Amino acid sequence: MTPALAERMNAISAFHVMSLLQRGKQLEALGRDVIHMEIGEPDFPSPVAVMDAGCEFIRTGHVKYTAPAGLPALREAIAQFYQSHYGVTVPARRIFVTPGASGAFLIAFAITLNPGQTLMMADPCYPCNENFLQLLGAKAQYVPVDAGSRFHLDHNLVNTHWQTATAGVLIASPANPSGTVIDTEQFSKIIQFVDTKQGYFFSDEIYHGLTYDNQAETALRYSQNAFVVNSFSKYFGMTGWRIGWLVVPETFVEAAEKIAQNIFISTSTHSQYAALAAFQPHNLSELDRRRDEFQARRDFLYAELTRLGFKIRIKPDGAFYLYADCSAFTQNSFQFAQDLLETEAVAVTPGIDFGDYNANTHIRFAYTVAIERMREAITRMERFICR
Amino acid sequence: MTPALAERMNAISAFHVMSLLQRGKQLEALGRDVIHMEIGEPDFPSPVAVMDAGCEFIRTGHVKYTAPAGLPALREAIAQFYQSHYGVTVPARRIFVTPGASGAFLIAFAITLNPGQTLMMADPCYPCNENFLQLLGAKAQYVPVDAGSRFHLDHNLVNTHWQTATAGVLIASPANPSGTVIDTEQFSKIIQFVDTKQGYFFSDEIYHGLTYDNQAETALRYSQNAFVVNSFSKYFGMTGWRIGWLVVPETFVEAAEKIAQNIFISTSTHSQYAALAAFQPHNLSELDRRRDEFQARRDFLYAELTRLGFKIRIKPDGAFYLYADCSAFTQNSFQFAQDLLETEAVAVTPGIDFGDYNANTHIRFAYTVAIERMREAITRMERFICR
Repeated sequence: MTPALAERMNAISAFHVMSLLQRGKQLEALGRDVIHMEIGEPDFPSPVAVMDAGCEFIRTGHVKYTAPAGLPALREAIAQFYQSHYGVTVPARRIFVTPGASGAFLIAFAITLNPGQTLMMADPCYPCNENFLQLLGAKAQYVPVDAGSRFHLDHNLVNTHWQTATAGVLIASPANPSGTVIDTEQFSKIIQFVDTKQGYFFSDEIYHGLTYDNQAETALRYSQNAFVVNSFSKYFGMTGWRIGWLVVPETFVEAAEKIAQNIFISTSTHSQYAALAAFQPHNLSELDRRRDEFQARRDFLYAELTRLGFKIRIKPDGAFYLYADCSAFTQNSFQFAQDLLETEAVAVTPGIDFGDYNANTHIRFAYTVAIERMREAITRMERFICR
Repeated sequence: MTPALAERMNAISAFHVMSLLQRGKQLEALGRDVIHMEIGEPDFPSPVAVMDAGCEFIRTGHVKYTAPAGLPALREAIAQFYQSHYGVTVPARRIFVTPGASGAFLIAFAITLNPGQTLMMADPCYPCNENFLQLLGAKAQYVPVDAGSRFHLDHNLVNTHWQTATAGVLIASPANPSGTVIDTEQFSKIIQFVDTKQGYFFSDEIYHGLTYDNQAETALRYSQNAFVVNSFSKYFGMTGWRIGWLVVPETFVEAAEKIAQNIFISTSTHSQYAALAAFQPHNLSELDRRRDEFQARRDFLYAELTRLGFKIRIKPDGAFYLYADCSAFTQNSFQFAQDLLETEAVAVTPGIDFGDYNANTHIRFAYTVAIERMREAITRMERFICR
């Protein structure tokens, strides 16, 4: 007889999009031409500067462990980036290089949250957040949000929902799935409120750099107590390299070092050297060209989905997502996504993967495919809707 | 005012060797020639086949996320390896590619252990084990071991120490810090005992392949309920690539998938393609030549340390460590290590980093430097001891 699963596994569910991904693969194996608008990953190849630096480093043969917090030169380069990009001073010693933003979240939550505490976050949001908390015995405290607050918590909501068990607040801006940037005044007010409560403020900034209208501001502008998670995956286009970073307050530096050395040893060394090259000016120019392409895609998709009858009450500012109300067509967006895939081979992510609130009437579209492909997807969806 | 650290951080300490590493760097900056025998990392460069495959893949530009469980081809290759190397059949679907063995431990413990449960393990052992448990609210249950049981738990010890809160047993063989392989009969008896208790058996096999006398046997030979952690870091020489794997029982496959997708997304893609090349026959031949070099180093160091008066009651079978009793020279091995570094610039790891039992009279030597360097280290230590 086999032993039992840990109890926490009852509270952790697989993403619904996984079954769609699997079905998509089956359809492709059958020769169907699936258009993938479900994938939260840029479609561009790794930047040339990154590939060059990665290979050059590998050829030294010296792909050894680094210090747990990361290469000193990379931590310094990230500190410089805060200075040049945001005009904010962050000492390199507060910056930890991590295996993706996932590693950053794990460290940040591990050094702060006690079992039984809750972390306030928006519903809808990135679904993994809650599951990191499950590992640590902490819990998500969801606050429903919609277009009325730009799909973000605001100062009033945080104030109203703050409870004894609330340990802090997490805000992701630009947000996943909505792509909206939080209003700057609300952002700073929430951070200050959490500071007065001696709570933890976690800022998920992994879509920074991919904003088209309102530039996203770092939480570090408003408080040196903020925990900031960022990544080389999205703007820098390095998903499979698995590298991100975490900024912690000064008093958490030692704790972050202890956790990093215990649970990761270090982040992939070749990825760290490759990421160093990502800050080269000619690479940043290339990344900005890619961002402009994302913007053109957003404009195209926003207009076309609106034309088809999807409701998008706020034009998203960034990331590469549109979170569209599909209530004109269905009250069950998961079923809608399954049928759309089956009938027209267009893959999208159902709202249920991001929370409960209005989930059954929302669909996330990722514009991580070229406009020509999206044009074909729109043709198919139009046919699907009018069927 | 800044918020407080999570309570678990009180129970997680930094490794003492970290302060030695830091001092070593300072001494090197001052021009001292430090001999590093503290580092648990092979000194050989990345194998050529691995570097070639890594770069070739990077050049495709397609360094994207993989499936959370890893590349199907790599999981298949690992399954083949179990067949060819151990004669054991393991379906690829039970094999998960992870960011180092660290990632494997995190998944294995997360899907099994509940808060308040304990995991039995030897003292001394690899210190990070306990800290993974801390994250999950579980605890280590240490059982002191010494040369009498080859620095391993045996069936009798496990039977005696099993308690209501005991959820399972962890055995690392070859062991860190002792380098000893567990007796095969004891190993199989413990695994069967844990099976009858419906407990979890975790087998840390990351030093497999680096054995010189007694070949280490995989736990999968004795039970399909065992959780096996392995890594490309040690025998395969891929530390900085950060890639390992986990084998889970059939009934834990779905849970492992959920945890992997939530807390890692996936393992570095270029590292996965590089690891695929690690199984090429000409590469395995190269790795076996390196293993032979480690064996020669072990023989040299074992003889020399014994000659100096260190007591090593069991000649280690594998890994690249010697765990030496230094009670002839000191009752405080951490101080001894500090003084040795300061006076003679030889860096070693104090026993205290591996547990409590006899820790103050033990030192771990890593033979991850060439024999010529060790010869110099022995000369220096001889002078130090006779000072």
